[in-house]
Amino acid sequence: MITLDILPKLEEIMEKQGLSPAIKDSVIKCSHFHSFPAPGLLIGVFMTDYALELLKATPDERLYGVSETHKCAPDALQAITHCTVGNNRLKVIPIGRFAITLNRKSWDPEIEGVRVFVDLDKLKKYPLIYAWFTNDPSFDHHGDSLPLLEEILTAGRTILSFEDVIVTTEAKKKWKSVICTQCGETIPDYLASGDLCMSCAGTHYYRKA
Amino acid sequence: MITLDILPKLEEIMEKQGLSPAIKDSVIKCSHFHSFPAPGLLIGVFMTDYALELLKATPDERLYGVSETHKCAPDALQAITHCTVGNNRLKVIPIGRFAITLNRKSWDPEIEGVRVFVDLDKLKKYPLIYAWFTNDPSFDHHGDSLPLLEEILTAGRTILSFEDVIVTTEAKKKWKSVICTQCGETIPDYLASGDLCMSCAGTHYYRKA
Repeated sequence: MITLDILPKLEEIMEKQGLSPAIKDSVIKCSHFHSFPAPGLLIGVFMTDYALELLKATPDERLYGVSETHKCAPDALQAITHCTVGNNRLKVIPIGRFAITLNRKSWDPEIEGVRVFVDLDKLKKYPLIYAWFTNDPSFDHHGDSLPLLEEILTAGRTILSFEDVIVTTEAKKKWKSVICTQCGETIPDYLASGDLCMSCAGTHYYRKA
Repeated sequence: MITLDILPKLEEIMEKQGLSPAIKDSVIKCSHFHSFPAPGLLIGVFMTDYALELLKATPDERLYGVSETHKCAPDALQAITHCTVGNNRLKVIPIGRFAITLNRKSWDPEIEGVRVFVDLDKLKKYPLIYAWFTNDPSFDHHGDSLPLLEEILTAGRTILSFEDVIVTTEAKKKWKSVICTQCGETIPDYLASGDLCMSCAGTHYYRKA
């Protein structure tokens, strides 16, 4: 299992590879946020860094991101660009491709953005990343993970490709507050199911103890 | 519009109210992550702090969280407890109630947890929070937001209630990597739509520029 204890070794590798201070800082920041330096998180750091450069944007701008996977990549986007789930500037769309899209704010229904993705062809040069990424049965999930992490830090953005895209924007929803007649808690009207909230109407992820 | 520039004033208020160092640190940390100290984010900080205490847990434990709203609250959970979207320890379930659930790791199909929510009855003592929370037309979204933020920092956890719950856990999905025959990118088999990924099969959030 990878833990934060491996960070000093990753810092040594990054130093040796001559990675930029921005990448080094992001790897450390994202690892603490995510609670460990997962392989997909490190790739996510390079993806986010690449997307920012392609968009000629800086992390302090008001950006909007999409992650096409819930695995790791959203955390790099969140911790670096401040496009978060809670501030509604990150959408996770369950397509399952290891890809992100980044764009600026727009009041128009569409805006130019950039999509960065892991390119399977480019990955073939890196046997460990390839085996891990494609979930190949040959990959040892219980062995030493440092060689894989080192390969990712060595590959950097060379395993990525990008495309310029036009992203559909979303207008802020107008809403009224309504009270669920069963639990008495408030919900926005657009999430109500008749007089009930979705939980009382049947979406149960818990029961009372 | 609320920005990070208001943080020094919030720090003064927290000092005056005698809030704990943990709360003060969390307010600052979460505000930077979220990119500004949103009212819902501050409530989220108190909710997360309360849930941790009720669970007798610390933020460095392996915890699992649910937010019943995508608004603000997930960011407090993410930044404080490291239950994140990307490490799969946070689920955002679009019920719309301003509530979170927190529990420990379990290999069983169910585990005890705690659910913390904003209690509308308790909110009546705080006219600004009440008007903002219920999206009342009387609330001025363009005015000075400091009085609202101050009321939230003053109210603290007194506007919250909790219940002990039993949460359903989710086993890790086994998956194989498959290649979409149209775009050539890899996806987990459980997200494929025949030979295609969901994007090529029709889930479009962008088009090529």
